[in-house]
Amino acid sequence: MIRIGILGGAGYTGGELIRLLLNHPDAEIVFVNSGSNAGNKITDVHEGLIGETDMEFTDAMPFDHVDVVFFCFGHGKSEAFLKERTIPAHVKIIDLAQDFRIASPTHDYIYGLPEIHKEEIKNCCHLANPGCFATCIQLGLLPLAKAGLLTNDVAVNAITGSTGAGQKPGATTHFSWRNNNMSVYKVFNHQHLHEIRQSLTELQGSLEASIDFIPYRGDFARGIFCTEVVKFEGEEGSPTNPTGEQLAEMYKTFYATAAFTHYTDKQIDLKQVVNTNKALVHIDKFGNKAVITSVIDNLLKGAVGQAVQNMNLMFGIDETSGLRLKPSAF
Amino acid sequence: MIRIGILGGAGYTGGELIRLLLNHPDAEIVFVNSGSNAGNKITDVHEGLIGETDMEFTDAMPFDHVDVVFFCFGHGKSEAFLKERTIPAHVKIIDLAQDFRIASPTHDYIYGLPEIHKEEIKNCCHLANPGCFATCIQLGLLPLAKAGLLTNDVAVNAITGSTGAGQKPGATTHFSWRNNNMSVYKVFNHQHLHEIRQSLTELQGSLEASIDFIPYRGDFARGIFCTEVVKFEGEEGSPTNPTGEQLAEMYKTFYATAAFTHYTDKQIDLKQVVNTNKALVHIDKFGNKAVITSVIDNLLKGAVGQAVQNMNLMFGIDETSGLRLKPSAF
Amino acid sequence: MIRIGILGGAGYTGGELIRLLLNHPDAEIVFVNSGSNAGNKITDVHEGLIGETDMEFTDAMPFDHVDVVFFCFGHGKSEAFLKERTIPAHVKIIDLAQDFRIASPTHDYIYGLPEIHKEEIKNCCHLANPGCFATCIQLGLLPLAKAGLLTNDVAVNAITGSTGAGQKPGATTHFSWRNNNMSVYKVFNHQHLHEIRQSLTELQGSLEASIDFIPYRGDFARGIFCTEVVKFEGEEGSPTNPTGEQLAEMYKTFYATAAFTHYTDKQIDLKQVVNTNKALVHIDKFGNKAVITSVIDNLLKGAVGQAVQNMNLMFGIDETSGLRLKPSAF
Amino acid sequence: MIRIGILGGAGYTGGELIRLLLNHPDAEIVFVNSGSNAGNKITDVHEGLIGETDMEFTDAMPFDHVDVVFFCFGHGKSEAFLKERTIPAHVKIIDLAQDFRIASPTHDYIYGLPEIHKEEIKNCCHLANPGCFATCIQLGLLPLAKAGLLTNDVAVNAITGSTGAGQKPGATTHFSWRNNNMSVYKVFNHQHLHEIRQSLTELQGSLEASIDFIPYRGDFARGIFCTEVVKFEGEEGSPTNPTGEQLAEMYKTFYATAAFTHYTDKQIDLKQVVNTNKALVHIDKFGNKAVITSVIDNLLKGAVGQAVQNMNLMFGIDETSGLRLKPSAF
Repeated sequence: MIRIGILGGAGYTGGELIRLLLNHPDAEIVFVNSGSNAGNKITDVHEGLIGETDMEFTDAMPFDHVDVVFFCFGHGKSEAFLKERTIPAHVKIIDLAQDFRIASPTHDYIYGLPEIHKEEIKNCCHLANPGCFATCIQLGLLPLAKAGLLTNDVAVNAITGSTGAGQKPGATTHFSWRNNNMSVYKVFNHQHLHEIRQSLTELQGSLEASIDFIPYRGDFARGIFCTEVVKFEGEEGSPTNPTGEQLAEMYKTFYATAAFTHYTDKQIDLKQVVNTNKALVHIDKFGNKAVITSVIDNLLKGAVGQAVQNMNLMFGIDETSGLRLKPSAF
Repeated sequence: MIRIGILGGAGYTGGELIRLLLNHPDAEIVFVNSGSNAGNKITDVHEGLIGETDMEFTDAMPFDHVDVVFFCFGHGKSEAFLKERTIPAHVKIIDLAQDFRIASPTHDYIYGLPEIHKEEIKNCCHLANPGCFATCIQLGLLPLAKAGLLTNDVAVNAITGSTGAGQKPGATTHFSWRNNNMSVYKVFNHQHLHEIRQSLTELQGSLEASIDFIPYRGDFARGIFCTEVVKFEGEEGSPTNPTGEQLAEMYKTFYATAAFTHYTDKQIDLKQVVNTNKALVHIDKFGNKAVITSVIDNLLKGAVGQAVQNMNLMFGIDETSGLRLKPSAF
Repeated sequence: MIRIGILGGAGYTGGELIRLLLNHPDAEIVFVNSGSNAGNKITDVHEGLIGETDMEFTDAMPFDHVDVVFFCFGHGKSEAFLKERTIPAHVKIIDLAQDFRIASPTHDYIYGLPEIHKEEIKNCCHLANPGCFATCIQLGLLPLAKAGLLTNDVAVNAITGSTGAGQKPGATTHFSWRNNNMSVYKVFNHQHLHEIRQSLTELQGSLEASIDFIPYRGDFARGIFCTEVVKFEGEEGSPTNPTGEQLAEMYKTFYATAAFTHYTDKQIDLKQVVNTNKALVHIDKFGNKAVITSVIDNLLKGAVGQAVQNMNLMFGIDETSGLRLKPSAF
Repeated sequence: MIRIGILGGAGYTGGELIRLLLNHPDAEIVFVNSGSNAGNKITDVHEGLIGETDMEFTDAMPFDHVDVVFFCFGHGKSEAFLKERTIPAHVKIIDLAQDFRIASPTHDYIYGLPEIHKEEIKNCCHLANPGCFATCIQLGLLPLAKAGLLTNDVAVNAITGSTGAGQKPGATTHFSWRNNNMSVYKVFNHQHLHEIRQSLTELQGSLEASIDFIPYRGDFARGIFCTEVVKFEGEEGSPTNPTGEQLAEMYKTFYATAAFTHYTDKQIDLKQVVNTNKALVHIDKFGNKAVITSVIDNLLKGAVGQAVQNMNLMFGIDETSGLRLKPSAF
């Protein structure tokens, strides 16, 4: 039984992590820390857990009683926390924020995308869990990066559900505004571009091309729907310009051993993955260009689902343990 | 040209009022006051007006240049405002808050429901505009009250759009929570019950029966959908227990001269009135009970649409002026 | 391992049953019959199963290889099917249609509501699974029926998600119409009233009162949100008119051993149970009346989740096996 | 008074046209033809018109009594109709289908985009009304085409509401499927590309670049939200690579005289134009690329709103007559 501590457990990712771990056959939540909610029942904050747990939030951090701690802080707070507190060396850390996603001599966090780092993850003690947009966009492009085919600028359009904006109400998550609405934000300038470029560069060796990413606020709560347009050079069928069949084969091979990422021959819709840890990827060729579609649930494969997948790998248990979720489908 | 001043113009009702009045053939907005937004363009705050106006919010209140002023304050602030400021006697007031909806010797505000008070409205100087739930519920019950048929408790269930909760983001208007959700609030205890009972009593003479009102938060932005169940006594067809045909006829007659409230023989759906000033009402008989359905747009017939209808009456112009709106339908 | 056959597996309930059973630790799907889809992959029809199964629909019905068969036909077709085909005596039947929900000397089907029939279910071979509205409404009223308190007419308002209308597109499930809309149907005349009255009568001994049920079409896909208003007689605190505290205690006691139905002290919202097999119930007292709120997921506790719960009971395994589902919450 | 006949009046565009014309001060609907609905009331088919009209559908076509006829047929049926029937020469035709949008020696229809063809429209007798996606995409690109700046491939992503798919229910407009979902269709292959290229070529002289258009099915009923990414060549500030300020100025100038298309300095959201005939356009520069956002209501500026705008021009009346619509905003 993996013993678990959760820090920052009152937010959306904290709640989703608790929802997952309560049904995880090999894990046990030891404590859920929340400064603002200490003493309150978890069910007072997180919907849908009535009847499943009587736990309360605590302001204690009994690290000696856990094997792993999840950081569900906001971005920037993980690093700040570690400057003030020491986590015992035997306790593994899974950080859901972006603080340690970019490799650096100053830290030993592994970027936790199992599709490319499975062995490193198995052996690591400190893990930086990928961002939601970053996961969805990378899963669409990684096979091409591995083949060295990202030589032209890539047009990326990805639409996210409102839960990506977290629990705090604001103008762009106000129901009256967002319902039946559509908008863009952080055009060409989203912070996830850094980790995306890091992974693509790692696989391709170098990356000159620009990743032109337009993020959209979608009129739904869960999920990310992403399209990516890639342009190839040279004659169709040559190594630099594979045919549609060759591309599909390339993707199938790349994800053949992935636990949750599947290539599908058909067009994808978002709800095929909502409330699961799955990612679906599809590619079509048009002339010298390919259009890739990729979808994930932003709170699961895009956040705590992937974090639990990484935990499973870090503790040497079945990668899918606790993650065989019924899709909501509707 | 009716010259208009708006106080509290930065909120949802203020914005909707501006949207209406910009296209009103007989009205002219002279000033839109907003303390917090003074100096800002109206289009910076109110969506959908780009290209239609260059006006700015002001912190001035040039009452001498207007014929009527609309109070779009929050509840309780109209009365407070009038204790601090004096409105010239020739300037009519239309108050959208609930401060003066209940008749009292301490004020001369007329309750502005044209379906029952048209003559009083035409002659008044100060008008209290009805609440949104109150309008929808009353329109379903008024013909029965006039016939003295509300002798048993009435079961009222009414579902409101999120705009009823205003512009300020909060937990129950957070998109991630409200999307695809349903809940109730202020069960049997909604503040609009006072004005509802006042009108019903006025028409029926007295009202012993309870109005058991359950308000629901709906998963949409605009509109109120209401059902009401009434029980009759005596033999069917007798004066105290009309047949379905008699009831339908009673409703048609009652609303025959109403400008915006229509009886319809068919079942109603909410979107039939969204983005219009209309109300639709339908009644069915089942045994000794009748089920009434009534619908309005909460921001229009439930707020500023009705306020403009009242203004038209108060200034002796066509009741429908500026209110012949294209339904959004979808 | 319980070996399972599914008839009518291409519809919404069939798909949801497959989604559940693929992750059920004690069950194995042997065949999924569908006349119209024989030979097609299950993933061609049911979203969200890509990567989870390679099964195909079949037109065969190898009853000898299964322990239980689920009827996912439309209403009326189960009885018709059994007139043409014989199911071996050792094969249990769980019928999701309404054909056998009303007890009759002509059949031996048990009405499968575990909250009242757990022992009968454990020992039965043929089970009629309750309707979705019927489940939600009964769970709100059963404790009162058991206490003999349903002596006055009950006002029931229940709002259902669109999946209750099934897979076939139509005018009232057309997105352009239903999105942001609200409407009622089958007012006071819904077919589930029969099974509701049957259970209430069973617990209370007799039931003179009317159940006045207004069904609403909601603007969401999954779930039923129900309110029920009950009027009591006599002095508050007397046996015929319990206090709010007494009522809450009555509900807690009634559901103390229920696997998935929980009483909660707080107001409920629909998404607390979406994508789970749970039901939540809450009661408030106002004067001589009580307002009950109850919620379920119409496809799970309202259909196949409850069917699997019944299957677990019929085969003597843990009632919650395969049903500890992560709530979607958003 | 312009006397109007409508053919194919029972569909979504027919209904929206009726909603507009009922409030048009200079127009009068003489007949609404619908084969399938002849004899039925218009309010039986088109929601939201109860209380506004008592007209019935007719199977007659009294062309002698009208000045203009609107074809609201499905695509391909306009041309077929004209092979079987003759419209008197004095009756103008406005065709909402795509049959005559591409210029050809075989017909004299003018492509009705007022932003580029105002004079031709004023003088024409036969008009082909632009497609919805085509209108939104062109309005985002026309100023660049006029400046000869579309020399590189353009990445277009546009999300449409469900009303674009019409009135007939189907799998991808089924509420249970589409609600909270996202998907793409006709990738790089939408039929509107022909008319888009025609206009761009007209303004730019020639067009070598590809318009790479990905259409998305959005989770809302009304509107199109479009982004377009354009790459420039040469040094920033040179004629082939304008600065952001220069681009904004170019757009403002291009649309300075447009009645309904406005450039805005701020980011756009879809609901700013829903239920209006307006289009909003915004451009941002990032390095050598620009990102344009454009929005319209697909049924209004994208269909019958623009058709009425064209009618106004064809009859020499105020271009905005009958089209000063209150935005729904929510």
